[in-house]
Amino acid sequence: MTESHPKPTPEAAQSLAEATAAAMWTRDRAAQALGLRIDAVRPGYARLSMAVRPDMVNGHHICHGGMIFSLADTAFAYACNSYNKNTVASACHIDFLAPGKEGETLEAEAIEQSQSGRTGVYDVTVRSASGRTIALFRGKSYRISGEVIAGLQQAD
Amino acid sequence: MTESHPKPTPEAAQSLAEATAAAMWTRDRAAQALGLRIDAVRPGYARLSMAVRPDMVNGHHICHGGMIFSLADTAFAYACNSYNKNTVASACHIDFLAPGKEGETLEAEAIEQSQSGRTGVYDVTVRSASGRTIALFRGKSYRISGEVIAGLQQAD
Amino acid sequence: MTESHPKPTPEAAQSLAEATAAAMWTRDRAAQALGLRIDAVRPGYARLSMAVRPDMVNGHHICHGGMIFSLADTAFAYACNSYNKNTVASACHIDFLAPGKEGETLEAEAIEQSQSGRTGVYDVTVRSASGRTIALFRGKSYRISGEVIAGLQQAD
Amino acid sequence: MTESHPKPTPEAAQSLAEATAAAMWTRDRAAQALGLRIDAVRPGYARLSMAVRPDMVNGHHICHGGMIFSLADTAFAYACNSYNKNTVASACHIDFLAPGKEGETLEAEAIEQSQSGRTGVYDVTVRSASGRTIALFRGKSYRISGEVIAGLQQAD
Repeated sequence: MTESHPKPTPEAAQSLAEATAAAMWTRDRAAQALGLRIDAVRPGYARLSMAVRPDMVNGHHICHGGMIFSLADTAFAYACNSYNKNTVASACHIDFLAPGKEGETLEAEAIEQSQSGRTGVYDVTVRSASGRTIALFRGKSYRISGEVIAGLQQAD
Repeated sequence: MTESHPKPTPEAAQSLAEATAAAMWTRDRAAQALGLRIDAVRPGYARLSMAVRPDMVNGHHICHGGMIFSLADTAFAYACNSYNKNTVASACHIDFLAPGKEGETLEAEAIEQSQSGRTGVYDVTVRSASGRTIALFRGKSYRISGEVIAGLQQAD
Repeated sequence: MTESHPKPTPEAAQSLAEATAAAMWTRDRAAQALGLRIDAVRPGYARLSMAVRPDMVNGHHICHGGMIFSLADTAFAYACNSYNKNTVASACHIDFLAPGKEGETLEAEAIEQSQSGRTGVYDVTVRSASGRTIALFRGKSYRISGEVIAGLQQAD
Repeated sequence: MTESHPKPTPEAAQSLAEATAAAMWTRDRAAQALGLRIDAVRPGYARLSMAVRPDMVNGHHICHGGMIFSLADTAFAYACNSYNKNTVASACHIDFLAPGKEGETLEAEAIEQSQSGRTGVYDVTVRSASGRTIALFRGKSYRISGEVIAGLQQAD
């Protein structure tokens, strides 16, 4: 991952992505409380889903934008942390295109668009199960010190 | 509020803002589930607070960005709906400046920057109780048909 | 293009995109003054290039961000107007990833991500001739009344 | 400016801001070519104006969004470089609220919202001479190595 290390094989990179996601998940009480599900994770990529529960609906009877954002932001987090380098969101932008409805399942797919130095850009698309595009999200990531899995061991 | 109606007095506008917020709140199960508190609402303005609970922390042991966004987005919603015209978020941008910590109370203050036709721009600042700026949020609003309070009566 | 008209054939849509771009170009004095070149236009798509001139450099000796934005924004404009419906930018976000240098040619490729009602979302990638990603741009479009080509005839 | 130096007096900070702006301006060929005028500069603050020339108009007969952005982005640059630390734009967001017209003078006022470590957030409001709000811009800055005035001496 660093300049002094050889590039990992695709298999090793995939294993690291999966192990990192598993380590993050155990600590990620917010994602657990939202009932998120990790459907797929790869280096620089993650796909998560969330069922819109009755307690996720806002004053307009549609899924709260914060819940849609939380789903997208979490997909972003799993994608940009997939190299086992501690990485946080620096800024995010979201366009809301269609309302999410109570009872439906939303899917967020995060794809790395750029990674250079400590900074990356990730695009996340949130879709309903019926294929409507609910939101487009773009997040800027920033690598801080430490590793995800090491951090876990340290924390426990 | 419309071209054919006279501009309400400041007192009437304030009463309407408070009544609209109360009506939204009864339906806003997401805001209730997050434990948000409406501290102040005025025409084009809202101030809300949220205590960072253990189930709002992410895999890096800090408040999940989605929860910070949800607080800011909700303050935005109460500010831009304060005229009793149904208004939704069209797009939002958030810059994360400092982490929120478990146990502390965050406050979001939403201020109208622009309102023209159906579109408005609102700035929300999220601060910790100790005065750290946690995030800067800018939301674009879009008025849809219907009224908040009428919508409530219709819905019940 | 409207609900009452049948969907155009791919050939007709392509012809319309090209005719619209040509009509816009004759009026687009800003794009001409920047020395932009339209390399390709298709329905919902445009690719433009710009040589970084000495008068496009800022106080840090690199291409002024406003010039990079102008290139991206113009590609966005040609993509979102390609259906011959007058469409303007409502909001744009740009991430600057690498500096542009005096003398090099930058290319901006705009791709439609979403189009629904009067609103669309377009992604634009700005690359250098050597393949560096210079900037990622996301624009929100809004259709106003009138047509691009009709507007041209009316204006002259 | 750094931890080891005492905080400058308000007078010294103001002098430094003015000297830095003057040094940037001599190299800022893009700002000169756009005919920008620096109306005021203070620590963390800048106000610039631009007359909308015939060659700044786009295919819709209104001021090209790229020119409005360039004005805002330049105000941002002078505000965030006012401490004589080389600082570049990392990302910018702009909401276009009203069209700018050929012949009118636009003013951009940049105000520092946050500055922490190497990163800052600046808000820029673009107004017409008649007081219409044309655009709201938010820029994220990033300090790179070097100083503005030293850079000038080095470069010449």
